[in-house]
Amino acid sequence: MKLNPISGFPERLPNERIFEQEIIEKIKKIYEAFSFVPLETRAIEYLSTLTSKGSDDKEIYSLKRALAPQEEREKDPFALHFDLTVPFARYVAENLSKLNFPFRRYQVQKVWRGERPQKGRYREFYQFDIDVISRDELPLSLEAEVLEAYAKAWSVFDSLDFKIYFNNRKILLGFYESLKIDENKRASVIREVDKINKIFEDGVREELKKLEINDDAINKILEFSKVKLSPKDGINYLKSFNINSELFKQGINEIETIFSLLSESTLSKFVVDLSLARGLDYYTGSIFEVKLDNYPEYGSLGAGGSYQNLCGNFINKQLPGMGASIGITRIISLLIDNKLVNLKNTLTKVLVAVYNEEQRKECNKIANTLRELGCNTEFFYKSSKIGKQIEYADKLGIRNVIFLDPENDNKISIKDLINKTQEDVDDIYKWWGYAKNRI
Amino acid sequence: MKLNPISGFPERLPNERIFEQEIIEKIKKIYEAFSFVPLETRAIEYLSTLTSKGSDDKEIYSLKRALAPQEEREKDPFALHFDLTVPFARYVAENLSKLNFPFRRYQVQKVWRGERPQKGRYREFYQFDIDVISRDELPLSLEAEVLEAYAKAWSVFDSLDFKIYFNNRKILLGFYESLKIDENKRASVIREVDKINKIFEDGVREELKKLEINDDAINKILEFSKVKLSPKDGINYLKSFNINSELFKQGINEIETIFSLLSESTLSKFVVDLSLARGLDYYTGSIFEVKLDNYPEYGSLGAGGSYQNLCGNFINKQLPGMGASIGITRIISLLIDNKLVNLKNTLTKVLVAVYNEEQRKECNKIANTLRELGCNTEFFYKSSKIGKQIEYADKLGIRNVIFLDPENDNKISIKDLINKTQEDVDDIYKWWGYAKNRI
Repeated sequence: MKLNPISGFPERLPNERIFEQEIIEKIKKIYEAFSFVPLETRAIEYLSTLTSKGSDDKEIYSLKRALAPQEEREKDPFALHFDLTVPFARYVAENLSKLNFPFRRYQVQKVWRGERPQKGRYREFYQFDIDVISRDELPLSLEAEVLEAYAKAWSVFDSLDFKIYFNNRKILLGFYESLKIDENKRASVIREVDKINKIFEDGVREELKKLEINDDAINKILEFSKVKLSPKDGINYLKSFNINSELFKQGINEIETIFSLLSESTLSKFVVDLSLARGLDYYTGSIFEVKLDNYPEYGSLGAGGSYQNLCGNFINKQLPGMGASIGITRIISLLIDNKLVNLKNTLTKVLVAVYNEEQRKECNKIANTLRELGCNTEFFYKSSKIGKQIEYADKLGIRNVIFLDPENDNKISIKDLINKTQEDVDDIYKWWGYAKNRI
Repeated sequence: MKLNPISGFPERLPNERIFEQEIIEKIKKIYEAFSFVPLETRAIEYLSTLTSKGSDDKEIYSLKRALAPQEEREKDPFALHFDLTVPFARYVAENLSKLNFPFRRYQVQKVWRGERPQKGRYREFYQFDIDVISRDELPLSLEAEVLEAYAKAWSVFDSLDFKIYFNNRKILLGFYESLKIDENKRASVIREVDKINKIFEDGVREELKKLEINDDAINKILEFSKVKLSPKDGINYLKSFNINSELFKQGINEIETIFSLLSESTLSKFVVDLSLARGLDYYTGSIFEVKLDNYPEYGSLGAGGSYQNLCGNFINKQLPGMGASIGITRIISLLIDNKLVNLKNTLTKVLVAVYNEEQRKECNKIANTLRELGCNTEFFYKSSKIGKQIEYADKLGIRNVIFLDPENDNKISIKDLINKTQEDVDDIYKWWGYAKNRI
């Protein structure tokens, strides 16, 4: 039987999974603090649902029953979702009357993309998304709330100096309008500008020429794209433009209002980046991306934006909202690959050792008592020399070893392997009472 | 675009998902208390890996890239796992040198089976598994530990009177040996006896006749299958047999030893059930199944057993262990379908209301302060009449509404919608300090 890892389908060792799960839990708690509710959608959708958004169809995995006869294959097969946004839009449309609006949800699930694996690119990986979606208009205060929560979520990676690069589609479209670029070309210009980190200035110039944009406009677009400024300087820079475009002014106003509602610590993570365009069609206002300057090879680690009409493919109703995504698998891999994290082999705090089989039942009771008190406890699986059991605890990183000392009337004794102390204990409840905040 | 639910692929409403997630979290904490580590395997395996165990191949979903040309299809395609046991065996074999033994892991993931959906049967569903696996022999104390943890996990469903039906393959095989049934027929007899709840006594009699078992033996097998007794009576009953089979005696000894190591509250959940056979080939000793007498239509809600050699298809090494599984999706559906649970619409404790836009920044600060203190807080999305905002909180089940009272110098005021009280608060930190354990 085949035993090799499959490229693009990462699996974690237990210590890595402990870390990954802890991070996911911490982020959940932060989003819950901002009143997002948990949601999960099924992993499969109809293929026709997934191919409707102009996505890269070749990357989608469709399903068939392994040994089903040829004629049983459906015209519209099931397929694995490749992101959480399309399923979320479908879910909201399907359950419209049962949801409370504004609907804030978080969703952390695996998604699948049949692309060529490379650094930071997987075929099975976790996304962690939030969205807030409204039934009427979307106040900018809700956008600010999403961004506040999103920045707080990133702060769980305390060793990382992340930045949220921020822009607004209205600013880009307004700017292109002022350059007299045809309205029907502006979306294409956005898609080309979005490639600036991959194909660089010369590449973008080339592509814009193909769109028959004149040289003067191209120069101005590329000049504009160079701007990366702090929130305050960014807004001042934008205000210094004297452009006759309502859209442009609206965009500036949106950025300014949102920034005014962010906490100082969150705002300090933001960079106004006028090169940022985001490829996806559905964004209409705010757009943003999280990157780490020190690890450009991992690309974008998260992104999002606001939209006017996410569910338009499903229902005849405008539901504006904002979404923000964290590429969990990618960021966890970055941290592990670059040894930026101390991995724990165990969540266990106490090892109950057992000298001999006569002690087993009593030791078992102690272990169960500790577990009920909320202390993660391992019971050594066979009676053997106490030194061997301590060695085992030490190797795994279990801090305390409890044993019944046969040389001391089978009294409970506790070794602390970090402080290198040993104490006799009369009452295990009492011991845990003061030890729980220490270990 | 299609908006209908897909049969067999359940999706939860937010209040249902809040509950499902809480249950999963509680069970994780219990297994962690017993020193199990979290693990996840990729959702896909090679099809050849999944079809190796004599499983029902027709149920397996294999993957293909949606628009990949015919000739690109692999001979051995990827497929979605249909349980967590085969992937776990593959993972252990693959990472043998990197794991600590005895290796205790929990694993909660979705699995997929292309079967016909019916009550309690899904095509996409959660399994929650634990296993302990050893590199040398497996002491019965480890089996007892798995069962203790498993029973504790079931106790999170405090409204349910679950029972763990327990048997041992050695008892069955020893009993068949004493009936002079050919050694090579005994596994087939087990598979037929396992169907007793589906095809009943007459059906089993029919099938055993086909295996050319004589009438006397069939009668004794069916008689034996009727036994359902408490742990103590069950062991006494088995001991009363005067059977000349080492295997039979070994089986009794195993059950007795395991029971002697269980806590009283856990043992009280056990029923010795000599009809229990379990269809899967790899079990060699203990076998068990969890059922609810009141809800027979949901079938088995969980099951497990011990095995001598789970990884034999992957490596040339005997790794004995024991596994136990909870059918999370099935039990959650049972609870929701039968209204056995009070669902919460929100995890939020406080709604910060906002009278007018002048208050927005101050209210935003209060909300962020509460969030940092660990209080899940929603900020009402627009300024409007306070009554409307209180109504909203009430409808969702948010207990407290905080607002700046413009008629009282914008002092912080807190309404408790359950106690129907209102108080002015000078210090939000202080308020949360005493409120956090109350709300």
